Amino acid sequence: MTQPDLVTDRRIAQAHGFTLWFTGLSGAGKSTLAAAVSAELRGLGMAVEVLDGDEIRQNLSKGLGFSREDRDINIRRIGYVAKLLTRNGVAVITAAISPYRAIRDEVRESIGAFIEVYVKASLDECIRRDTKGLYRRALAGEIPQFTGVSDPYEEPVCPELVIDTEREEVPDSTARVIDRLVELGHLRSASDA
Amino acid sequence: MTQPDLVTDRRIAQAHGFTLWFTGLSGAGKSTLAAAVSAELRGLGMAVEVLDGDEIRQNLSKGLGFSREDRDINIRRIGYVAKLLTRNGVAVITAAISPYRAIRDEVRESIGAFIEVYVKASLDECIRRDTKGLYRRALAGEIPQFTGVSDPYEEPVCPELVIDTEREEVPDSTARVIDRLVELGHLRSASDA
Repeated sequence: MTQPDLVTDRRIAQAHGFTLWFTGLSGAGKSTLAAAVSAELRGLGMAVEVLDGDEIRQNLSKGLGFSREDRDINIRRIGYVAKLLTRNGVAVITAAISPYRAIRDEVRESIGAFIEVYVKASLDECIRRDTKGLYRRALAGEIPQFTGVSDPYEEPVCPELVIDTEREEVPDSTARVIDRLVELGHLRSASDA
Repeated sequence: MTQPDLVTDRRIAQAHGFTLWFTGLSGAGKSTLAAAVSAELRGLGMAVEVLDGDEIRQNLSKGLGFSREDRDINIRRIGYVAKLLTRNGVAVITAAISPYRAIRDEVRESIGAFIEVYVKASLDECIRRDTKGLYRRALAGEIPQFTGVSDPYEEPVCPELVIDTEREEVPDSTARVIDRLVELGHLRSASDA
């Protein structure tokens, strides 16, 4: 079977709701990739919601801090909302650091149609990019419990996909995400419908 | 135009997502009506989510209390999730006391396709029913800030529908909810599709 030209092929259809769970360091490229993939999925006619870490903290977790306990509560809330949307046929993309493996596995269990995407860049590269100016402040000791600097990040052991943003361009990464969704049966060619 | 037999008519279709916002005292019958209406809507082939007050507190608002501020935060979170589901075509039913008018109006603005249903029973009747045994404890002073006993309940001024659960049976109330959804254009006869 020949692989279709995924990024432009309009014959791809959604099989059911799913959650693309992006995890990775601050500055690794989660939000950028989420924007590109969501545009692609919308272009294919799908209902898409991006649950961005910052937006969710604002709407569901104001007052929570960055202790392990508070981070876990925040991730559980994102997971709960993602579950509700997923079971109603929405393509959900979450873009939160979600540094702890155990809680990612917990939401995976809860959601079912869960695709873990490790959006990977080295700490050095994230510090070099410092898109939000947060690493500079964290390294100066102005932000406590900053993932990668003063708080742990646990890499995924068996993610469905690894996107290395130091080596790949966004369009290629986007195509690989769509490709993997087809492979896993979360998207299908319309001819299979 | 003759009104179709709404509760059994299978030619009703969903026009778009919407949120049925049930408000009323504890014990007024919100959850009972939510269960009946959700069964009816599912029977019509719709995607339905019930956001029950207790379940949402468990999943999104653990640690929040019952001060006005905490209640408002809780209602904003329900409103946020209802908005995400509504704009993705889901029929959402919320069943939280939501005692304050201002915050109900705020979520109305935010959601758009919002139908406020005042599920009404007198305080005396709710105390008589006391389905969860909470009024007895609240009246004994064991539960502070209990709506209707030691905390205010602000009745809706212009709800889209009032269901008087002291005078109506559940099947009749359910039919009236469906009827009102059709009237407001949130549901339509399939023949109009």
